[in-house]
Amino acid sequence: MPEVRLPPGSTIGILGGGQLGRMLSVAASRLGLKTHIYSDEPNAPAFDVAAETTVAAYDDEAALARFAGSVGVVTCEFENVPAKALEIAGRKAPVFPPAKSFATAQDRLVEKDFIAGLGIALAPYAAVGSLGDLNEGLARVKIPALLKTRRFGYDGKGQVMIHTLCEAGSAWEAIGETPSVLEGVVRFEREVSVIAVRGQDGETRFYDVVENVHEGGILATSRAPARIAASTVFEARQIAGKIAEALQHVGVLCVEMFQREGDEPRLLVNEIAPRVHNSGHWTIDACPVSQFENHVRAICGWPLGEVGRHSDAVMTNLIGADVEAWETLAAEPNTAVHLYGKAEPRPGRKMGHVTRLFPES
Amino acid sequence: MPEVRLPPGSTIGILGGGQLGRMLSVAASRLGLKTHIYSDEPNAPAFDVAAETTVAAYDDEAALARFAGSVGVVTCEFENVPAKALEIAGRKAPVFPPAKSFATAQDRLVEKDFIAGLGIALAPYAAVGSLGDLNEGLARVKIPALLKTRRFGYDGKGQVMIHTLCEAGSAWEAIGETPSVLEGVVRFEREVSVIAVRGQDGETRFYDVVENVHEGGILATSRAPARIAASTVFEARQIAGKIAEALQHVGVLCVEMFQREGDEPRLLVNEIAPRVHNSGHWTIDACPVSQFENHVRAICGWPLGEVGRHSDAVMTNLIGADVEAWETLAAEPNTAVHLYGKAEPRPGRKMGHVTRLFPES
Repeated sequence: MPEVRLPPGSTIGILGGGQLGRMLSVAASRLGLKTHIYSDEPNAPAFDVAAETTVAAYDDEAALARFAGSVGVVTCEFENVPAKALEIAGRKAPVFPPAKSFATAQDRLVEKDFIAGLGIALAPYAAVGSLGDLNEGLARVKIPALLKTRRFGYDGKGQVMIHTLCEAGSAWEAIGETPSVLEGVVRFEREVSVIAVRGQDGETRFYDVVENVHEGGILATSRAPARIAASTVFEARQIAGKIAEALQHVGVLCVEMFQREGDEPRLLVNEIAPRVHNSGHWTIDACPVSQFENHVRAICGWPLGEVGRHSDAVMTNLIGADVEAWETLAAEPNTAVHLYGKAEPRPGRKMGHVTRLFPES
Repeated sequence: MPEVRLPPGSTIGILGGGQLGRMLSVAASRLGLKTHIYSDEPNAPAFDVAAETTVAAYDDEAALARFAGSVGVVTCEFENVPAKALEIAGRKAPVFPPAKSFATAQDRLVEKDFIAGLGIALAPYAAVGSLGDLNEGLARVKIPALLKTRRFGYDGKGQVMIHTLCEAGSAWEAIGETPSVLEGVVRFEREVSVIAVRGQDGETRFYDVVENVHEGGILATSRAPARIAASTVFEARQIAGKIAEALQHVGVLCVEMFQREGDEPRLLVNEIAPRVHNSGHWTIDACPVSQFENHVRAICGWPLGEVGRHSDAVMTNLIGADVEAWETLAAEPNTAVHLYGKAEPRPGRKMGHVTRLFPES
């Protein structure tokens, strides 16, 4: 029996009010569930489709306690939610995914050590706490390498590429001399990701492995399915399942990997996200049950839903001014347009996405 | 150019807060649009996913004016909205579908005369204003026949079956001696319906014709596509297009028909609904763009979206206590469960639906 079992009519609390919260809320409504969205931003995109809303800081203990006291379960739409916020919420309601998933994903070094500890391959990496560490690390992981802050990096932020050894000093400065991880840049054929969903009873399902293209550190497109061998799909899912199991994760987990041809091992884990993920947006349109709905099902103790795809799909993000083409995109055949209701199309801001379906192939 | 063109970020006003309003609101959110839901019921199902809500009677002129003044366009999720409410709203914002669509669909006699006037076949019918009319009508349309109130009937309510001529008096009493229409009961192979969407520029698109089964006057299942000849599909769409055009309709229009084998004409129109319709719910899961989103697109002056289906589908309504099986239904493969967030599963109440997808066939 699941620890939490919320029947239709119950309310889910979501920390975070961005597009992921918005799509989670829509998925919850389909199951007859309500949402209470907590965000530190007024006019958060998710507020448009929420039954209840709270605007407060993520360190406002009284607001967090009130919020968690009003819902049957608490979840998060972003991984950098403060541990303290989860702890306070956890006193009033169950929180899924569990704290360990967030603690692991919030710190690149903890994450890499955790994954390596499971016997799963990663690109070479080194902990960096000083310029001395960085120089030592460069000797070991080789150039080119990426220096990334341990915490709070996303969409290409908080990282510096190092091409030559003499760039070590400036890179260390550029990163703010903050605790970091140095990652060796490996050659790969493609980036792939696995969207897994794990229920409270441990049942785990996997969507098709997708193939991702990043531009400027931001996801540009995801193609489902990835053009990889069946054995690689099998291996990718095994890796994601092992991580989900070791975290005792509940909900959706995304594992991003580099896929190599020729070299062994074929798959190196890049990073994990303990939440619904941009590379799973295609599931809204190409699967009977989306990643958002399966996350809701898992945290509410419902049976997991179908993860098979009825159509091949290519998801393309609309970044910044891309969204101005909404009318042209809306006129395309076999295309689903998703806009997030954000007012200003700032550069680098995810404004929406389109999913092009290919039911015939 | 469309008369109304609402870009992302705009707000749509919806009169009515039931499940259709709820699914319209979710579809609007996908396009970056907000909704303001107006309902005379507190806790209306659509309120869970609305950016703004108004609880007021449909004859509250001040509330209607305030509501319409806060939105870019007004639409309705039920056809029996009072003409006066549409008129008041229309002073503050464009209203789609147009008043003529509602006026026609609200009165069974006006509706039948209108359709007959277009040269479209119907089952034999007669206007009934007195017991004398009823007896005359029975002589003409033959028994068995259905006596239906001209206004406010739905889901099998407001109608009496007449099997023998001597039942005329009791039927006239049962119907409340209210202005009615007598309809001859014709033999047919199946009931079908066409979901059409017509844009402000007159462009009209049609989803696949579906086959409906009613139980106790309430829709039980819709199957897409209907098992009918391509020529019948063509004819059904032509009929729906002709009606939409004659009404200068904007938005989704559903035309229900009886399909006969052998007899000519093959299709007899039963009734029309100037709105998104229960027999189009399968489009959420089996088409890239659902009837709800295409309705929103039409009233907002967006390009119409894809109406092709990627999967065959069977939609089954969850009426009353059917919804108690939610957990079993949620565990079915290739199935999408939709629950409407209604508190009490009263007999005859539409609580949700499931769509079973058949992507292979």
